[in-house]
This record gives sequence, C-alpha cells and structure tokens, in this order.
Amino acid sequence: MSILLNVSGLFIVGGGPGDPELITLKAYRVIKRANVILYDNLINKELLKLAPKYCKLVYVGKQPYGTYTPQEVIHELIKEYVETNKVVVRLKGGDPFIFGRGFEEVLFAEKHGIPVHYIPGISTMQATGLSDIPLTHRGVSESMWVITGTKKDGSLSKDLRCAINSSATVVIYMGMKKLEEIAAIYAEAGMGDMPAAIIQHASLPHQKKVVCAVRDLVLAAANGGLTYPAIIVIGLVVGVKV
Amino acid sequence: MSILLNVSGLFIVGGGPGDPELITLKAYRVIKRANVILYDNLINKELLKLAPKYCKLVYVGKQPYGTYTPQEVIHELIKEYVETNKVVVRLKGGDPFIFGRGFEEVLFAEKHGIPVHYIPGISTMQATGLSDIPLTHRGVSESMWVITGTKKDGSLSKDLRCAINSSATVVIYMGMKKLEEIAAIYAEAGMGDMPAAIIQHASLPHQKKVVCAVRDLVLAAANGGLTYPAIIVIGLVVGVKV
Repeated sequence: MSILLNVSGLFIVGGGPGDPELITLKAYRVIKRANVILYDNLINKELLKLAPKYCKLVYVGKQPYGTYTPQEVIHELIKEYVETNKVVVRLKGGDPFIFGRGFEEVLFAEKHGIPVHYIPGISTMQATGLSDIPLTHRGVSESMWVITGTKKDGSLSKDLRCAINSSATVVIYMGMKKLEEIAAIYAEAGMGDMPAAIIQHASLPHQKKVVCAVRDLVLAAANGGLTYPAIIVIGLVVGVKV
Repeated sequence: MSILLNVSGLFIVGGGPGDPELITLKAYRVIKRANVILYDNLINKELLKLAPKYCKLVYVGKQPYGTYTPQEVIHELIKEYVETNKVVVRLKGGDPFIFGRGFEEVLFAEKHGIPVHYIPGISTMQATGLSDIPLTHRGVSESMWVITGTKKDGSLSKDLRCAINSSATVVIYMGMKKLEEIAAIYAEAGMGDMPAAIIQHASLPHQKKVVCAVRDLVLAAANGGLTYPAIIVIGLVVGVKV
C-alpha cells in the first residue's frame, strides 16, 4: 500500500506532539524499516522502540536553552549515514516545517544529490484540542497566527504587535522565557483581559494546562508549575468552553 | 498499545490532507473498529475501505459553494447513532479544529452527555511541504498566518490587511473565489511582487501547483487549470527553493 515501501534516501519525519499514536501511518511504516534514526530531543522515545533491532539510533537533539548539536554537524551525519544505509530517518518533534528547521536539511540533501522525502507531523499546537481549546471556532476566531517566541537572534517576533490588532488566535512556540514581554504587549494595547492558556506535554498523560488572563501569564505559569517547552495560546477560543 | 482500544463514544477524527497514509496511527485504529462513519466530502474515500465490513458509512458532506448537510442535521445524526453504536467516527478532511467546525460537534456531544474524543489530523497547509514550500524557514519567515477566505458571512477575513504588514507566511484556506481581492490587497500595499503559490490536491499523486507574483494569482490559477478547493500560500517561503 505504501508508496514509500521501496524508496530509499533521507526521510524528514514529523514525530508529532508527544503521544506516539499521533504519528502518521507513513511515518510509522518508515520507522519500521529504518536503518538509522537521527532523533531530536523533543520526540517521544517510545517511537524509537518501533525501529527494527538492527537500526542505529543517533541522538542529535537540542536542549531548550541548553546544549545542542549544531545544524552543520547534523548535515554531515546525514551525508555520512546516507552513503551506506538505505533508509535514514530524521525524526523531529511536531512538524518539521513548522519551526523545525526541517527544510534546511531538505536543501542540504538536495545540494548533495541525496534523495529526500518529507513526512509531515501533527504540530504541537494541534494538540491543544486535547485540552478543549480549538485553534479556530466559527464566529469566534476565523484565523490563527503562529509565531516563535525565540527568533534566530533570540528576540520575540515583532509580528506579535500586528497579531493583537487582528481577530486571530495567537499561538506562540518557544515563548516560555518571554511571558512577561508577551503580557506587557497585550496590557499596553489595553487587552490584558484576553484569555490565554499555557499547555505543557500536550497529548501526553501528564499534560498540564493553565488558563488565565494574558496579563497574568507569568503568575499562572509559576502557580501551575509549568516550564519550557510549552505552547501558549491567546484568544477568545480559550474561553469557548467554560 | 492504543489507549482508545476499549473506549466508546464519538470520535472527531482528522482525515488529513488527502494521502490516506497521512492519517495518524490513532485515526487508523479507530476507523478499523468503527461501527458508523459520518464522513465529509473532502476526505479520501480510500480511508472508508479501512473500516470493518459491518460499518455503516454515512455521507454528510458539503460541496464547496454547493449543496451541504446542515450542521444541525449532522448533530442529530451523531445523537441517533451514538445511542445504538459503540464507535461512531466523524471523519473530516484535514484537522477538525482548523476551519473544520469540529469543536461545534464536541460542544454538542458534551451538552448531550455523549463521550467525545478528538484525534487531530495533518492540515492541508502542512502538505505544501510536499510541493517544496515550508511554512516557516529560519531567517525567511518566523511566523505564519492562517486565515479563511470565506468567513461565516461569506467575506474575506479583514485580518489579511494586518497580515501583510508582518513577516508572516500567509496561508489562505477556501480562498479560490477571492483571488482577485487577495491580489488587490497586496498590490494596493505596494507588495504585488510577493511570491505566491496555489496548490490543489496537495499530497495526492495528481497534485497541482502554480507559483507566481501575488498580483498574478487569477491568471496563474486559470493558466494552471486550478479550481477549488485549493490552498494559497503567500510569502518569501514560496521562493526559498528556486
């Protein structure tokens, strides 16, 4: 059935938000026949147990705000492993093309003549639905703005100031060190009352959620014992179900 | 392995962008034990073949800009089928909580005491990666704005005028009848040169893509023979790989 059954090369695979059953059927089938898996910090390690016994598992992760494998090293490992292995899986948390730097690896592979295949994954924001927060809801929010709290230079995206003037659900990845700044941007615009939520370990049995007014994000995170990585959702969708 | 193996009730399931292998493992396993599937127009009919022989398949779809099953009728069918069936699957295209109205069905079910479970799906926008367009790319676009071209009242979301002032990748669902209006908003802002793409049947063997300057969207769609439903992506990510 799978069109990838006999295909070799590099597979850039989305590992989903955490629950191992939330990977795609295609990802599952490729992991089942992987010779090498280069895996990130944020994937659920249960996924590695699906690999065949002969599969080589290589950690190339990045700790949030901590030690990490430089992208150039990952590129060199890809090149090296693809030379002698049929199926090399690059397993990343969430979706590789949503703040995952996955496309950099695609471009690298193509530049070096390596056949490369992309398998999307459920992004962490989609798992907020498991905490009763839909990303869109008719008549409440008919758009969503997804930003990173930590740009290449470490700063919060300026786009947030545009986003608050819209009706969009605002979703912030990697924003846990910017809670005070995020709260201030809303408060200065007179929107400190806007409902917000922080969700950690979305989709896993130990997931945690706090809901608060956006101005109280710092306090709510502290009281709830939530740390990074976590996803932040701001907008009226947070209050749809009360 | 599945935590849902013995669970009954209503399952709001994302059917993904089209490729039947892009459903989640969890969705696959629930479909395999479904007693009833209430399915939308946009799902790949191949998914229905995974259901057991005894499963009742009920079409409750909506043709784009055409005939449709009113939401209230779907609600009543859910209520009726759940009374006498263990596993009722509501199978929707993409992700049920990204412009899918899935949460309305969750709220309806809860109001009537029906156990309800959400299984997210790969949203169509994520399949643009299969056409070499990443939604984000470090240093190029560090946010994305996802809007609907057709709001409840039929109009294009006003949020588009906010979005063009940001660095966001703009993704538009259900916008094929608004191409002229979209192009004009960018052109009036002096941004008619911005790269844009339209992708139809994303993730399927017969997928089609056109790439153009945003001012030329109407012409490009006509020349490429692209119709609705299709997804529109506007921003510098369209030109990352040339």
